[in-house]
Amino acid sequence: MALVVQKYGGTSLANANKIHAVADRIAATIARGDRVVAVVSAMGNTTDDLIALARRVADRPDARELDLLLSTGELVSSTLLAMALRSKGLEAISLSGAQAGIRTNASHGHAKIAGVEPRRILDELDRGRVVVVAGFQGITDDMDVTTLGRGASDITAVAIAAVVEADRCEVYTDVDGIYTADPNLVPEARKLDEIGFEEMLELASYGAKMAPRSIEMGMVYDIPIMVASSFVEAPGTLIHKGADMETRVTEIRNRVRGIATDVDVAKITVLGVVDRPGVSAELFEPLAAADVSVDVIVQNASEDGATDLTFTVKRSELTRALDVVEEVSRQLGSRGVTSSDNLAKVSIVGTGMREGSGYASRMFRTLADHNINIEMITTSEIRITCIVDEAVVADAARALHAAFELEKPGP
Amino acid sequence: MALVVQKYGGTSLANANKIHAVADRIAATIARGDRVVAVVSAMGNTTDDLIALARRVADRPDARELDLLLSTGELVSSTLLAMALRSKGLEAISLSGAQAGIRTNASHGHAKIAGVEPRRILDELDRGRVVVVAGFQGITDDMDVTTLGRGASDITAVAIAAVVEADRCEVYTDVDGIYTADPNLVPEARKLDEIGFEEMLELASYGAKMAPRSIEMGMVYDIPIMVASSFVEAPGTLIHKGADMETRVTEIRNRVRGIATDVDVAKITVLGVVDRPGVSAELFEPLAAADVSVDVIVQNASEDGATDLTFTVKRSELTRALDVVEEVSRQLGSRGVTSSDNLAKVSIVGTGMREGSGYASRMFRTLADHNINIEMITTSEIRITCIVDEAVVADAARALHAAFELEKPGP
Repeated sequence: MALVVQKYGGTSLANANKIHAVADRIAATIARGDRVVAVVSAMGNTTDDLIALARRVADRPDARELDLLLSTGELVSSTLLAMALRSKGLEAISLSGAQAGIRTNASHGHAKIAGVEPRRILDELDRGRVVVVAGFQGITDDMDVTTLGRGASDITAVAIAAVVEADRCEVYTDVDGIYTADPNLVPEARKLDEIGFEEMLELASYGAKMAPRSIEMGMVYDIPIMVASSFVEAPGTLIHKGADMETRVTEIRNRVRGIATDVDVAKITVLGVVDRPGVSAELFEPLAAADVSVDVIVQNASEDGATDLTFTVKRSELTRALDVVEEVSRQLGSRGVTSSDNLAKVSIVGTGMREGSGYASRMFRTLADHNINIEMITTSEIRITCIVDEAVVADAARALHAAFELEKPGP
Repeated sequence: MALVVQKYGGTSLANANKIHAVADRIAATIARGDRVVAVVSAMGNTTDDLIALARRVADRPDARELDLLLSTGELVSSTLLAMALRSKGLEAISLSGAQAGIRTNASHGHAKIAGVEPRRILDELDRGRVVVVAGFQGITDDMDVTTLGRGASDITAVAIAAVVEADRCEVYTDVDGIYTADPNLVPEARKLDEIGFEEMLELASYGAKMAPRSIEMGMVYDIPIMVASSFVEAPGTLIHKGADMETRVTEIRNRVRGIATDVDVAKITVLGVVDRPGVSAELFEPLAAADVSVDVIVQNASEDGATDLTFTVKRSELTRALDVVEEVSRQLGSRGVTSSDNLAKVSIVGTGMREGSGYASRMFRTLADHNINIEMITTSEIRITCIVDEAVVADAARALHAAFELEKPGP
């Protein structure tokens, strides 16, 4: 008898029929003799609808109020799923984040889980019940409701799996697994049977659909995560530690595991910044204070004591970022600020890249052969990312997919 | 500087514009130097929509799950109102029932308030904040969310007013006060400036729009309640203890204070029940177990050792009641069961009736003069109720309104 945490996304719960389909899937798991904790997102577009409602009332909704408002979306879906399970004769109970013991810090809108007190969940499991937990939300020591950020129901699921010592965590979504590239851009993209935590982390950060924090948590607590479709009966992709070990074998074959893409990229360049210690801090501290997430940062080589500093942000944060940067730029006495918002990222990812060589040159050569200009380059141990024009990102992804032979199954 | 609890109903909060109008009203109260706790219902028809959603998922939604689901309606309206207040530069914070310290028993769907722990509300008031409390909901000692029953945000408001020792409780709704009769039935109906708790209790039970439990709580804790419209600037009706004292003066004038009507009445008669001790219990205990609310009960005088027992229920509960009654009737060996569902109640209400006389005969004479047949009669200390055909209830109300001269203001 295994203990399984299953997470269901918003598209899997979009209406009464889909909620019943999810209940059937849980019933089948129970019938196999397993115990289930189900973690749910809000139905369909509920969260976006609630945000729109808040914006109709206030231009800048207070973060604490917005959290309490948004938390209702998962309360609705969790109670409905519990009702659906009960209507099929299963014992089931829904728990809010607070009831499920999800304690967080007080960073409204992007709270971090401080700990999970699993007593209530374990008690309900001991009573033979399916426990349905409202994802995405927690509670502070002051009893204030927080949310963990977009897509964070995945984090709730993995955190609960860790503290209840679940045998596995299954994440059901509207795609049937992790692909070698975005299938919308690269028709040849292939579903992976398994992938390592670190590789998934790079893919997740660069476009694939799982919150990076949930992968990190799975990695730290060693919770195997199966990502699969809630709409079809087919094995998904297993994200686990073991995969890294197996890919060590494939390192010999110099395998890239996937192509990540992200079209939500804007770029800001501060021209002619005096190149002295502390300049970066003076720029990036006020950006952090303004809650702007800075991604790729490139500082061009300095020749005359002044340097150009370029970095990327999400497009939705460009205006906010420019307000801050133009102010700081004046203080720093730089030559000016330029920006563009029609960029995209394309990355190759694979643990095999740790020790192999020639990946970067093959990537740059491939892009050059396809007449694709590279605006910025950044790398990690297992990833190389190029910033390119948004218009050519699909061409770039297809070209790289072919160049690294990702359409062929691994060994 | 007064401390005021203001309760806003769902129609007052139906959309973003109306929420801003409510925020303006609260801002005006704050500008007068008062402190405000606002208690809110769910926006518009939210509660009905959520119930419909639950019914699409399960034929008989579990009561605990339904409570957690329904509680989201007031969370949405309370957070939006807090956002609207903040957008006007006021300090404001929303609190769920749990956060506001509303402790209840575990009777899901119709929980009773066990107590209010006002620490958080008082702390937030001390910080100079408007406190917006989600009405209608509370929490059990086991941290389970409960609801207090339909219209119960009034109860939340009065309970909070009692524990924070508010100077007054204002209930804003879509009508501008308490009337001498239902204006839809009696065009001459007049708004009362004030009314006693006990009188309001009888009017509330018989059609007017305030939850009787909230009136009882106001009476016990001596919280004056002002019922007024949130859409117009006009004084409403003050429900208070003082009114009873004043009406003692008007007792000399034998005043009836209002006419109550209720068209949601069905009648069941059990024919030829053996008249022995315990028969009533055998009938009404299973009805209570089936959650049928029995209202007026009349037992006709027994002649041959068998008696006819008649009682009224809500129309929506008639089918359920008949299932139970026909089963019990067979066990009791009665002669049969009859029912009808086209009845209505009309009542005259007034504390003056306690000591005066001739009210009943004047009521019956008035109805007889208008050719209105009385099916059943029931009385309390300050109320006389007749069950009549639904088709004539407006005629009856108008005739009684005129007979007791309710169109004339009191002394």
